Amino acid sequence: MAEIQSSRIVLASRPEGEPKPSDFRLERGPVAAPRDGELLLETLFLSLDPYMRGRMSAAKSYAKPVEIGAVMEGEVVARVIASRHADYAEGDLVLARSGWQSHSVQPASAVRRVPDAAEPISTALGVLGMPGLTAYVGLGNIGKPKPGETVVVAAATGPVGSAVGQIAKLRGARAVGIAGGATKVRALTEEFGFDDALDHRAPDFREKLAAACPDGIDVYFENVGGGVFDAVLPLLNTFARVPVCGLVAHYNETAPPPGPDRVPGLMRAVLSKRLTVRGFIVYDFADDIAAFEREMTAWVRDGKVTWREDVVDGLENAPEAFIGLLKGDNFGKLVIRVAP
Amino acid sequence: MAEIQSSRIVLASRPEGEPKPSDFRLERGPVAAPRDGELLLETLFLSLDPYMRGRMSAAKSYAKPVEIGAVMEGEVVARVIASRHADYAEGDLVLARSGWQSHSVQPASAVRRVPDAAEPISTALGVLGMPGLTAYVGLGNIGKPKPGETVVVAAATGPVGSAVGQIAKLRGARAVGIAGGATKVRALTEEFGFDDALDHRAPDFREKLAAACPDGIDVYFENVGGGVFDAVLPLLNTFARVPVCGLVAHYNETAPPPGPDRVPGLMRAVLSKRLTVRGFIVYDFADDIAAFEREMTAWVRDGKVTWREDVVDGLENAPEAFIGLLKGDNFGKLVIRVAP
Repeated sequence: MAEIQSSRIVLASRPEGEPKPSDFRLERGPVAAPRDGELLLETLFLSLDPYMRGRMSAAKSYAKPVEIGAVMEGEVVARVIASRHADYAEGDLVLARSGWQSHSVQPASAVRRVPDAAEPISTALGVLGMPGLTAYVGLGNIGKPKPGETVVVAAATGPVGSAVGQIAKLRGARAVGIAGGATKVRALTEEFGFDDALDHRAPDFREKLAAACPDGIDVYFENVGGGVFDAVLPLLNTFARVPVCGLVAHYNETAPPPGPDRVPGLMRAVLSKRLTVRGFIVYDFADDIAAFEREMTAWVRDGKVTWREDVVDGLENAPEAFIGLLKGDNFGKLVIRVAP
Repeated sequence: MAEIQSSRIVLASRPEGEPKPSDFRLERGPVAAPRDGELLLETLFLSLDPYMRGRMSAAKSYAKPVEIGAVMEGEVVARVIASRHADYAEGDLVLARSGWQSHSVQPASAVRRVPDAAEPISTALGVLGMPGLTAYVGLGNIGKPKPGETVVVAAATGPVGSAVGQIAKLRGARAVGIAGGATKVRALTEEFGFDDALDHRAPDFREKLAAACPDGIDVYFENVGGGVFDAVLPLLNTFARVPVCGLVAHYNETAPPPGPDRVPGLMRAVLSKRLTVRGFIVYDFADDIAAFEREMTAWVRDGKVTWREDVVDGLENAPEAFIGLLKGDNFGKLVIRVAP
């Protein structure tokens, strides 16, 4: 078999604040042949997700940072182009955490098949994948919306936010979505079925949010932080739940924002409203994966949950697309089409 | 029956920051005779608790503020001196929420008997009462310490903190207590059986806390806020739980402290460590009262839970004692002996 050349995007330097194109570097190099139990994979789609910003920093978190010079992490849909494992054959489609590269060798134990229901296959990285599961487990285990309650989510046209709103509706709650710009806001009600939608960039955003939540907020699914959280906090009801899933508004911060220090005020609200603020990552609820796959597959098949993708062609465009993701430039789940 | 004169301490003005004696006023006036279904009560002990500071402010909270000119709220142990209800007789001892006054008329439906196990009867306001129950339900429902885990609590010689530490020990956890001053710190290990104890006023408090918690902190029972919380936060383990029960360090604040704003940092910690931060008040867990009474009564009887009281004589001294309570001047559960 001819030696295969892989394109890889490595972390060239740790970003200070907003990542720059020069924080990434495109490299090419040969891929080793797979050994027993391994698969040679060709990446078809690479998922880009906000959590990746955390991996670029040296700060301690739940996962190790990407080393300087190492391939950026990420989940992909890939095609098996050579197999040294009995369970996989050439042409099989798998999910792998092989990162920002066109080809790689992975142990068969580290991949799993793309579910048959993933149609197109890139949805295995979105509504039927990690982002959809994140919404499902965060709402199911922490948010726990009851019929008639109000659920608020930001970045609501993104893969997590749009699933949060739609699952909340399926559970009988009222869903209010927040997004940036008129086009996305319109999509929230027209495409994703949110009960109300608003633009966090509007000068009267706080007033509009209060008007959109006349009975207060029972669940705020936190994936952005920043000004949205500030506007949400006074509207939270007694016993409201705040699953904390992401803080994209803060990922590029290099220092704490100026004062006053609002921690005492936040803690007072936690106490007087008996809030539950709980952080989670998707892997904390691995027991829910089977239920997620069953329910979400049915919902998508039956048109009860819809989704939107923002597909960018070419691995070389991943850095720019990722930089835009942190600013909300994408519209729907951002994936890079690495190979046709 | 001769008309009875009651002494009452009313809220004269809403404190700005730390309460002053002039924010209170001692009044005397006649008490109406009890009508059918009512009891005339003579207060024996009045409980003073930090939550009362909240009732002095107009700010919205879980309970309504005390009106200017109204009797300060609070729970008391009282003796029935006249009864118009078949279930109660003269001389019966009851718990009532009759406030900072020497006598009052209460509907029988609003009082309950002092439990037989309360010996002395003032413990019905402390270890066997609301503070003990607060510790019990906050640990049981939110903190959920597992054997071998580390539980940290501040104001640890107080009635809530000392119960938190001792219950944590009974559940098999390691208890680290924080208090102000060498005498209290010594009592934590020698009297209350904490595994380790430290003084939050020490200049190297942060380092000492880290040294006292070599395996990190799994449960931080939050009843003070301020610098203790700042020192605790970096030591919290993944999946740590923070029951938020009080924030006495902040009750006298008139404005948010200077910056930077540490809310984003706190939320990052919540996310990356998957913390649960949850506010509660004791009445949220009314279902646990029977179990509390059974377990805590046995623990106190068997000497497994000990307690300390700080008894101040005279209703007229309640304002000064309360002002001191917010500064940590008391040593143990603060009660006012209103009548012998």
